[in-house]
Amino acid sequence: MQLVMIGSGNVATVLGRRIRLAGHTVLQVVSRQPENAARLAGELGSAFTDKWQEIDKQADLYLVALSDTALSDFARRGPALDNRLVAHTAGAVSKDLLETITRRPAVLYPLQSLRKEIEFYPEIPLLIDAQTPADKELLTAFARTISGVVREADDETRIKLHLAAVLVNNFGNHLFRLAEDYCRQEKVDFRLLLPVIRETADRLTRFSPGEVQTGPAIRKDRATIEKHLSMLGKYLDTSELYELFTKQIEAL
Amino acid sequence: MQLVMIGSGNVATVLGRRIRLAGHTVLQVVSRQPENAARLAGELGSAFTDKWQEIDKQADLYLVALSDTALSDFARRGPALDNRLVAHTAGAVSKDLLETITRRPAVLYPLQSLRKEIEFYPEIPLLIDAQTPADKELLTAFARTISGVVREADDETRIKLHLAAVLVNNFGNHLFRLAEDYCRQEKVDFRLLLPVIRETADRLTRFSPGEVQTGPAIRKDRATIEKHLSMLGKYLDTSELYELFTKQIEAL
Repeated sequence: MQLVMIGSGNVATVLGRRIRLAGHTVLQVVSRQPENAARLAGELGSAFTDKWQEIDKQADLYLVALSDTALSDFARRGPALDNRLVAHTAGAVSKDLLETITRRPAVLYPLQSLRKEIEFYPEIPLLIDAQTPADKELLTAFARTISGVVREADDETRIKLHLAAVLVNNFGNHLFRLAEDYCRQEKVDFRLLLPVIRETADRLTRFSPGEVQTGPAIRKDRATIEKHLSMLGKYLDTSELYELFTKQIEAL
Repeated sequence: MQLVMIGSGNVATVLGRRIRLAGHTVLQVVSRQPENAARLAGELGSAFTDKWQEIDKQADLYLVALSDTALSDFARRGPALDNRLVAHTAGAVSKDLLETITRRPAVLYPLQSLRKEIEFYPEIPLLIDAQTPADKELLTAFARTISGVVREADDETRIKLHLAAVLVNNFGNHLFRLAEDYCRQEKVDFRLLLPVIRETADRLTRFSPGEVQTGPAIRKDRATIEKHLSMLGKYLDTSELYELFTKQIEAL
């Protein structure tokens, strides 16, 4: 396939690399950040422009990998792409937003936390949506060339999975940040926790999280809980979360 | 080494397997749950008893892998082990608790969430403490035969790491449980989240969690946040955590 990539951030970069690796051609990178556009175009062997009006009109697929705000702006003021297949990559935005610039709006949403610093992702599930069965089929076939896990998902399903991903990834990562901060300030080695963090994730392939809850809260071990809370005195965010998690787990 | 294992639950089982695999002998399993004791003794090729007074007095090392409550009880009413090396496996309990039954109290704490259903753990960091340098050395040398990551850690360091492990494992697992529950009730596939969960954990080997925070809260994307909260209406625990996490992440 011949593509135009609109955007040059984390999602555009990680997807762009996989697209190129799968043998497709990224004709052009379009981004209002000229430096980022040039960097990504260099990496993908593409032309680039920072002007929406210079967008190549001959591609098979336009991937719009922009933040939600920039995506709205693109839908309002971007160039008419008429009968071209245009897919955005946002979890919480309806595909209909793109109706202002194309008769073939679509979505290709990567259910993964993508960062361009990370060269290799073992798995990036892709959720696909489009207006017609033919476009769904076309986009699914394309998606399968860059990912082993491809599913059709309408707007409602996609935003539900996006919400669930926020819980596990964004909030999980915040817990890791608080733990790292605590360890740094208390001068104990956060890296000793990496095996238990990895185990907590890995065992979900075989166990439901409800079956493997451990720790003082599920045991209703008030002595340990009180001890922990007293140790967390000056860590206000961590204390607050500790109390709420403990309350919820004790009530299970 | 010749050991006696006191306890027959998750910690005793997982450590017992590794100890046996490393070529040591578990002379005896001691547990007040006769069925569990028999099962573990069968697996380890050991004798077993459910009576503390029948404990073998000739071992090089006694591992006390009991819950905090049972451990207290053992320290109060267990047999005198005089000059034997006795190590408990608890994160939040001082080694001094064992002074009532031995002159050589010690700790061998696995910083991992251990479940006997799980046959293989890639890594179980062990935190070691003992009364004398000689016992620390002896226990460290033993620990190295069953784990690639062994550190000395006094009571204070150990309980800090235990607290941090509660944050990342117990609370992380609760987030996974809430996400799974939401997905089940909303009829979307929780397993699609496993790659992002794994990625969130794996990238900590190379990035600090503060560097890789993503999502609506860190972007202060109020539209998505309000949408998510309205979708979480009937999920009270999840809503409550969503609000608290979002407040904390937005304030970063």
